[in-house]
Amino acid sequence: MQIAMIDDKIVPLEELEAIYCDRGIYFGDGVYEVVRSYNGKIFALEEHLQRFAKNLSAIEMVGVDIDHVCRRVRKAFDAAGISNAKIYFHITRGSAPRSHTWQANLKPNFFLTVTELPDNTEEKTKGIAVSTHPDWRWKRCDIKSLNLLANVLARVEAAKKGCAEAILVNDAGLITEGAGSAFFAVFGQTLQTAPLTANILPSITRKFAIEGGKNIGLEIVENSLTPQQASCADELFIAVTTKDIVPVVEFDGKLIGDGKPGKYTKSLIQEFCSFTS
Amino acid sequence: MQIAMIDDKIVPLEELEAIYCDRGIYFGDGVYEVVRSYNGKIFALEEHLQRFAKNLSAIEMVGVDIDHVCRRVRKAFDAAGISNAKIYFHITRGSAPRSHTWQANLKPNFFLTVTELPDNTEEKTKGIAVSTHPDWRWKRCDIKSLNLLANVLARVEAAKKGCAEAILVNDAGLITEGAGSAFFAVFGQTLQTAPLTANILPSITRKFAIEGGKNIGLEIVENSLTPQQASCADELFIAVTTKDIVPVVEFDGKLIGDGKPGKYTKSLIQEFCSFTS
Repeated sequence: MQIAMIDDKIVPLEELEAIYCDRGIYFGDGVYEVVRSYNGKIFALEEHLQRFAKNLSAIEMVGVDIDHVCRRVRKAFDAAGISNAKIYFHITRGSAPRSHTWQANLKPNFFLTVTELPDNTEEKTKGIAVSTHPDWRWKRCDIKSLNLLANVLARVEAAKKGCAEAILVNDAGLITEGAGSAFFAVFGQTLQTAPLTANILPSITRKFAIEGGKNIGLEIVENSLTPQQASCADELFIAVTTKDIVPVVEFDGKLIGDGKPGKYTKSLIQEFCSFTS
Repeated sequence: MQIAMIDDKIVPLEELEAIYCDRGIYFGDGVYEVVRSYNGKIFALEEHLQRFAKNLSAIEMVGVDIDHVCRRVRKAFDAAGISNAKIYFHITRGSAPRSHTWQANLKPNFFLTVTELPDNTEEKTKGIAVSTHPDWRWKRCDIKSLNLLANVLARVEAAKKGCAEAILVNDAGLITEGAGSAFFAVFGQTLQTAPLTANILPSITRKFAIEGGKNIGLEIVENSLTPQQASCADELFIAVTTKDIVPVVEFDGKLIGDGKPGKYTKSLIQEFCSFTS
């Protein structure tokens, strides 16, 4: 008799709940998004759904109705009634006996959570420390997939050093992005970040940070940085949906500027408020 | 109220079943093994458990009792009573609200299936076709983790071409291994395969194939091959737990040798029987 075992419990395979055979858990065969609301209003949902649709297509998941996903997100957000919410959702290719190739008739699994976003005024005010880690991720980081073990391991190594984020460095010695954020440096009146061709996520907060940078008079340079260059920047910051702009005041143990959030970074935080209000 | 949504169903977050918050599905934060039995006897379980322990350690999962895992595997195998069985098992770091960093008190989740292994006499007799695909995997392929989307996508592209396996080629133009197998070439009396330093899995079937190769008088060369070199080999085969040795008779559309399994490959299949009986 074919069986499954969950911890110490044995169940006949045909009685196993489908969630245990989710291709998300077997292979990370799915894509996800994180959106947030500011004061009761979801920010940039359209952009996130567009990216989500692109990612589904990139992993050859066809037939997902994005309008349906949109309705689910709005319905869940309304049901939760949380003003400043974090909305996480993923779709996996479905549940099936484990096999790399998939059958055409699989029903995708949708999962979503709406949770309270913790206030991050303190890190915005004081800034955070970051540390570098080799970029062990796969070569399709343009796809926001559930394959995130490299990000997890990097973030945990950073945490051990008291750092809130790991800044990933590829084999060529160039910074790609943070384990869960885009990474920016200010030199004089220039705002620099890795180009989208550098095997990074086309981050939506990155896009808004660039737009905000232009608005406050910075010249934008999309060129990869070395850790050495980053450590000599006038200002550094990360950009991520759940926190928007967070100043980086320490890089691999070295203080950036005077160890306090820089003036352009502070302006950008203000500028970001104009996008989200 | 914090909530989760499964397909169209909304549930309060505190009532959500733990399996939905498995770090395996959020991040692929777990490691797995596949072992098999021949005629009622599990093959090379000790080696698989040793590798499993090493992999748990590599992703900093401490405190898993490998003897306990061994007892579970044996208990499940006995309960299933399948003579030629495939035993898949994974351990994830546990279930928790989604956060890259983990809390120390997480209870790992264990999951296992015992299923019937399909007979593969036909592919052993006729051989299979394979095709190359860029190796998109992460840089820690020595760890048998649940981050397998690159393998899935490569295997599916191969299947579209009527091929049973994708042979992965890295940025340097060198073959690493198959999407789910080790890859070998025979030139004259030499058996060649990529070295373990080439970002490949330390495959247990690879180890036995090398041992078998020595037994039948082949010289072993652990050196990476280009696709061009592979396509000119006298013989090719893949090695994988669930199928042991499978001849490759077509490589990127080109016939290998006379398009039939080669003599050394056939000897190796015989030799493998002596390991497993």
